[in-house]
Amino acid sequence: MPHTKTFPETSAVELRDRLLETVRQQMPVPFTERDAERALAALLTTDNLWEAIRLSRVPLRVLSAFWHRLIAEGLLEAHDGALRLTESGQALAQALGVAPVREATCVHCEGRSVDYRTLPEDVVERFAEICRHRPEAIQDYDQGFVTEATTLARIAFAWHRGDLEGKQLLVLGDDDLMSIAAALTGAPAYVLAVDIDDRLIQFINDVARREGLDRLEAVRYDLREPLPTSWLRKFDTFMTDPTESFLGFKTTIERGLLALRGPGCAGYFGLTHVESSYEKWAQIQRFLLDSGVVLTDLIDDFSAYVNWGYIESMRSWEWLPTHRLPERPWYYSALHRIELLRTPALENAAVEGDIFTDEEAATT
Amino acid sequence: MPHTKTFPETSAVELRDRLLETVRQQMPVPFTERDAERALAALLTTDNLWEAIRLSRVPLRVLSAFWHRLIAEGLLEAHDGALRLTESGQALAQALGVAPVREATCVHCEGRSVDYRTLPEDVVERFAEICRHRPEAIQDYDQGFVTEATTLARIAFAWHRGDLEGKQLLVLGDDDLMSIAAALTGAPAYVLAVDIDDRLIQFINDVARREGLDRLEAVRYDLREPLPTSWLRKFDTFMTDPTESFLGFKTTIERGLLALRGPGCAGYFGLTHVESSYEKWAQIQRFLLDSGVVLTDLIDDFSAYVNWGYIESMRSWEWLPTHRLPERPWYYSALHRIELLRTPALENAAVEGDIFTDEEAATT
Repeated sequence: MPHTKTFPETSAVELRDRLLETVRQQMPVPFTERDAERALAALLTTDNLWEAIRLSRVPLRVLSAFWHRLIAEGLLEAHDGALRLTESGQALAQALGVAPVREATCVHCEGRSVDYRTLPEDVVERFAEICRHRPEAIQDYDQGFVTEATTLARIAFAWHRGDLEGKQLLVLGDDDLMSIAAALTGAPAYVLAVDIDDRLIQFINDVARREGLDRLEAVRYDLREPLPTSWLRKFDTFMTDPTESFLGFKTTIERGLLALRGPGCAGYFGLTHVESSYEKWAQIQRFLLDSGVVLTDLIDDFSAYVNWGYIESMRSWEWLPTHRLPERPWYYSALHRIELLRTPALENAAVEGDIFTDEEAATT
Repeated sequence: MPHTKTFPETSAVELRDRLLETVRQQMPVPFTERDAERALAALLTTDNLWEAIRLSRVPLRVLSAFWHRLIAEGLLEAHDGALRLTESGQALAQALGVAPVREATCVHCEGRSVDYRTLPEDVVERFAEICRHRPEAIQDYDQGFVTEATTLARIAFAWHRGDLEGKQLLVLGDDDLMSIAAALTGAPAYVLAVDIDDRLIQFINDVARREGLDRLEAVRYDLREPLPTSWLRKFDTFMTDPTESFLGFKTTIERGLLALRGPGCAGYFGLTHVESSYEKWAQIQRFLLDSGVVLTDLIDDFSAYVNWGYIESMRSWEWLPTHRLPERPWYYSALHRIELLRTPALENAAVEGDIFTDEEAATT
């Protein structure tokens, strides 16, 4: 080991607690001892800024603040997109008993538990071909789409769970093109994609026509508006990748639940660490239970996002202590599957105001 | 398709609803439309009794009752451990839009998302050698242990999540020998296995001595008793595979939570479909949130159980409409990881009575 332990354990704990206290005073985002430990573990594992974000599992807003505190205390150096713990920083991590992250992810399915290669080969090939011409992700609608393997794996997962074949599927916001991948399987009875972005509506409808996918349709819809009456209680399954402000998340899931026929129907959504603390995860889990739902699956790091073009203008860019564009996916989300146990008492009302931003938001 | 659709859709729905009603009247276990659909999908996929149980994801008690109703209505035949839908049964499934299960499980990690082969090779080899002499599973304590790959994958998962290295680990009930696998990695600071079964205590302590695992210890403990004071708030991580009666489950998890130091500490447990309905899953999820916990991971079918010797004397044996011993694993559980967000207000009290059985229990 190159660095000897220069901190006695108690003074390391004191220093950590002081760092935590300062960060908490600066930031309205929960930041726990364990979060600090995860952030240090990530810094022991990689010097790549983006890789450190991925491994930390801590909202980027508070993670950046923590990094700045470490830099101010001489525990971390940030240059040219690289983050390096100083000797003191390494000694602190060691004195706190923090170890590097030891990844155990299955390389075959990239940690998804399902293998998209179980889909018919022509689905995978046609989807890849279609994706070559997809619309760019834009910031106006908090877009950022997942890798093709991710979209296909979500569809394979839903098929496995009995949520696809013979079912009516609603995709709420579809820059990931889940509706197209689902329709290509030929399994669903009907697939409706709704999105606020006219480019996507046109793209999906064009693909449907060109590929002969006559059970696929896309319609423009703004989630802030009530769900049209003709969609209420009409679907078996919904899929969505919601914006993660609590209001935006809640609104999206409520629209999805209102669209479901009733008990036994299922929903899929993603949730990140970059924009949501475990406190927010718990708040969301309570909201789901209160809505008559059970959580049946939760696979972290299931969804990998292709780096979007507006990365330098996202709100978190200026929080970073050093800047370099990411070379690999770094923004991941956890796949959640929920199943409705009883018909929820939800209002189908319009929502006012900013549904994209809360204290933990990073990419809008 | 060999069988033409002989049911108009409405009469199929009427028949299904009548079947559901009868089953619900007979059984004090939730049974939903979707459960019936899953059970039919399984029967369209396999004629193997045990495989049908695995694929149905429905508590065995109510699943057996459903099968008996199908048989009484001439929709299902049961002979020599095989279940076959009759022509009418297939027509019913088809009219209800039920499709066979299309599995998408990753064959490399067996759907676990982590690969146990990421562990050092000698850990895998030594663990396999040690398991050759393990005690048999016995019914008195609702035992039934998981495959070696499952135990190793749980340890790989916990290591990945930062819950192993440098940590104090408590294993509550250890017929799966998780404490041994954990100690073999050399990563934990200390591993304590507790169990009611003297055979296991002796086995683990013998292995610790023989293998030079001086940070591993096993102590006899009955979960119905309060946690000894010296274990309160002393551990970073607990692992358990609780009995699934709600009282037994709650008691086990509460002991685990009481043993944790505080916020940021983690717990692992399994939960099945064979003995727990999604209603019970939801009840458990609410209990967890109320205990100050967030659910961070939920990977279904993670844990595969080796068939135990007392299968013909478990309470569910006589419920089955036909009998044959299983040839492959059929009893699976979902791996759950929880993380403590705040110190829970829990009582460390003795629990009286039968903690092993409730309406949904099958194997005791």
